[in-house]
Amino acid sequence: MKKVLAINSGSSSFKYKLFSLPDEKVLAEGMADRVGLDGSTFEIKLANGEKYEEKIAIPDQETAVNLLLKSLKKYDVVDDINDIVGIGHRIVAGGETFEDSAIIDKKKLQKIRDLKEYAPLHNPAEARGIEAFMKILPNVPEVGVFDTSFHHTLDPVHYLYSIPYKYYDKYKARKYGAHGTSVRYVSARAAEMMGKDLKDLKLIVCHLGSGASITAVKGGKSYDTSMGFTPVAGITMSTRSGDVDPSILQYIMKKENISIDQMIDILNDKSGLLGISGISPDMRDLKHNPDKRAQLARKIFVNRIIRYIGAYIAEMQGVDGIAFTAGVGEHDARVRRDVMKSFQFLGMKPDFDANWTNGEKFITKPDSKIKVMIIPTDEELMIERDVVRLAHLE
Amino acid sequence: MKKVLAINSGSSSFKYKLFSLPDEKVLAEGMADRVGLDGSTFEIKLANGEKYEEKIAIPDQETAVNLLLKSLKKYDVVDDINDIVGIGHRIVAGGETFEDSAIIDKKKLQKIRDLKEYAPLHNPAEARGIEAFMKILPNVPEVGVFDTSFHHTLDPVHYLYSIPYKYYDKYKARKYGAHGTSVRYVSARAAEMMGKDLKDLKLIVCHLGSGASITAVKGGKSYDTSMGFTPVAGITMSTRSGDVDPSILQYIMKKENISIDQMIDILNDKSGLLGISGISPDMRDLKHNPDKRAQLARKIFVNRIIRYIGAYIAEMQGVDGIAFTAGVGEHDARVRRDVMKSFQFLGMKPDFDANWTNGEKFITKPDSKIKVMIIPTDEELMIERDVVRLAHLE
Repeated sequence: MKKVLAINSGSSSFKYKLFSLPDEKVLAEGMADRVGLDGSTFEIKLANGEKYEEKIAIPDQETAVNLLLKSLKKYDVVDDINDIVGIGHRIVAGGETFEDSAIIDKKKLQKIRDLKEYAPLHNPAEARGIEAFMKILPNVPEVGVFDTSFHHTLDPVHYLYSIPYKYYDKYKARKYGAHGTSVRYVSARAAEMMGKDLKDLKLIVCHLGSGASITAVKGGKSYDTSMGFTPVAGITMSTRSGDVDPSILQYIMKKENISIDQMIDILNDKSGLLGISGISPDMRDLKHNPDKRAQLARKIFVNRIIRYIGAYIAEMQGVDGIAFTAGVGEHDARVRRDVMKSFQFLGMKPDFDANWTNGEKFITKPDSKIKVMIIPTDEELMIERDVVRLAHLE
Repeated sequence: MKKVLAINSGSSSFKYKLFSLPDEKVLAEGMADRVGLDGSTFEIKLANGEKYEEKIAIPDQETAVNLLLKSLKKYDVVDDINDIVGIGHRIVAGGETFEDSAIIDKKKLQKIRDLKEYAPLHNPAEARGIEAFMKILPNVPEVGVFDTSFHHTLDPVHYLYSIPYKYYDKYKARKYGAHGTSVRYVSARAAEMMGKDLKDLKLIVCHLGSGASITAVKGGKSYDTSMGFTPVAGITMSTRSGDVDPSILQYIMKKENISIDQMIDILNDKSGLLGISGISPDMRDLKHNPDKRAQLARKIFVNRIIRYIGAYIAEMQGVDGIAFTAGVGEHDARVRRDVMKSFQFLGMKPDFDANWTNGEKFITKPDSKIKVMIIPTDEELMIERDVVRLAHLE
């Protein structure tokens, strides 16, 4: 039976999910953690729910790949490693080079590396992941699935910044967005749930994880999105600031005597919910915390979501459906409630009871002019499908 | 007859308008230009339309003030300089210090100077203007009218950035907004035109000059506004960028090997319509220019207005009226048309014929759910009224 692997390589982690074809069943999933660091671990979870974790030295991605293949044999997930007929890799930055997922050869691997300026932590690690598989399974096609590709349909009116045009011409400084794979899955699923053709719909996808973005999807195509040149822009996130007045960088850099690199690190790692609350980057920790700044952080998070939804409804001149996905979107009923309350003036009729529990469903009443849904995202499934499509495994 | 002067001091200019009391008639207006520079000029325009300009050395603000007072006598605008019973000054940055206009004494003058970090070009020049009048007319009350004061009603949810809270605590790094005096005038006038109490209205004021901002006014109070810590944030302007991904500063600074100060100067002086088009910062120059980037600049300008209006409609959960003011807002029918077209889905019914000519009026049909107005702004009138109010000249 043919199988496809979906891989998500981080700077020191390596997540995987193995699908069987053509039924798209998940046979195993897990991760290698702290790759290249002390205290590394390897974890595998089988379809029957059994889970095994071992502490083992994993000095590099190649070791992680070998460990994965060995484990798949050991736990009888695959009989023959040659059953794995395709491997898909999540890649954060595709720049203007990758307008769709693509089979990755040596030349394209270099292009992924060349885009490292757009995602300094991610692209090099992801390239190393692909390279490791190329060495160990040289005859299996590797497919890159880019977080940015879904947004290649943006119009220049939406992707250009109002800065000297030469910076776009010379350096491709523009909005790229992210979370495209998730938004692609969720918007397609929303259309299915609504029983409509995606081409006829105006949708807004709220991908609210520790990274968070809002995307307007018009006729199945990304129309505008809140993340920008990098994922730091847009709405408030766990530790990322989202939008700020650029002058405030200059002001704080002088006050604190820090460099632009230190400033951008602060905007990425010490801002957002963590920065406002001073307590935690996690919405769950802030939820029942009576601390004033904890509640302020939650309110600001909700406000920025409302702002972007409002902006995108205006840009698309209406909206048919809004979907919540990812950690916070799927599990924080209060956030969804507070966002929905703000759009009742447009004929949205929230079903607050339905909203109180999680799982894929509608959380508006049947006669609501604007439908709102919870849709658990599944980026790995999209990766698997792109591998099948591009490697012609149907 | 009592008279009040309204003063707008720039870094090298000094504009004035003289009002009579209590009828608020403009008796004279004009400016001293290139103060402290070669080729300085003094100009006066009388109520009868006569205009006089002279080339004359104006080394400093005191000379400009003396020249003004001499001219008012020379052209018989005032019989006695003592008829001038109050002087109002536009001040760009009031920080968290000035929540309303205020009578300026020596101590408050220092506070205006202390706020120079928020408006390095403006506040020091404006302080010099006040000082010059204090010397020459020591017994006349000076009133500071702050561009930021109207926005002091913003909630922390709207004025805080999602950055470490200590930057607000220690350095007051937050959103202040601008154009408050204009928005205050226009929103009050909109309520009058609509025949409603300002307290019952949700309004959006689009102040579109070379600096441009969108402000949500709820119940007569500023609720949210697009400019930020400084006026560089928000929508695309003549030469200012408006919102950008903060990471793009880091990226361009490295590529071009420039400092944060140079970068912020570029975002203030070489971006916006000028930066995108490469042709002109002036919407009038771009209007009929078939150049692709000229038209792109206009489209981006309109898009950013639509985005903010949409965001603020969502934040206020509806809108009763939208007002266009300042140079572009009052005179660019195409911009107003394109913005209005985007909100027809909300029950706005544009009157495209009315829109085609300028002047204060409604540009939506009488049965439009959302009213849209052109309202020529009058910041000097607001300054005059604040002088009357605070110096008890009624």
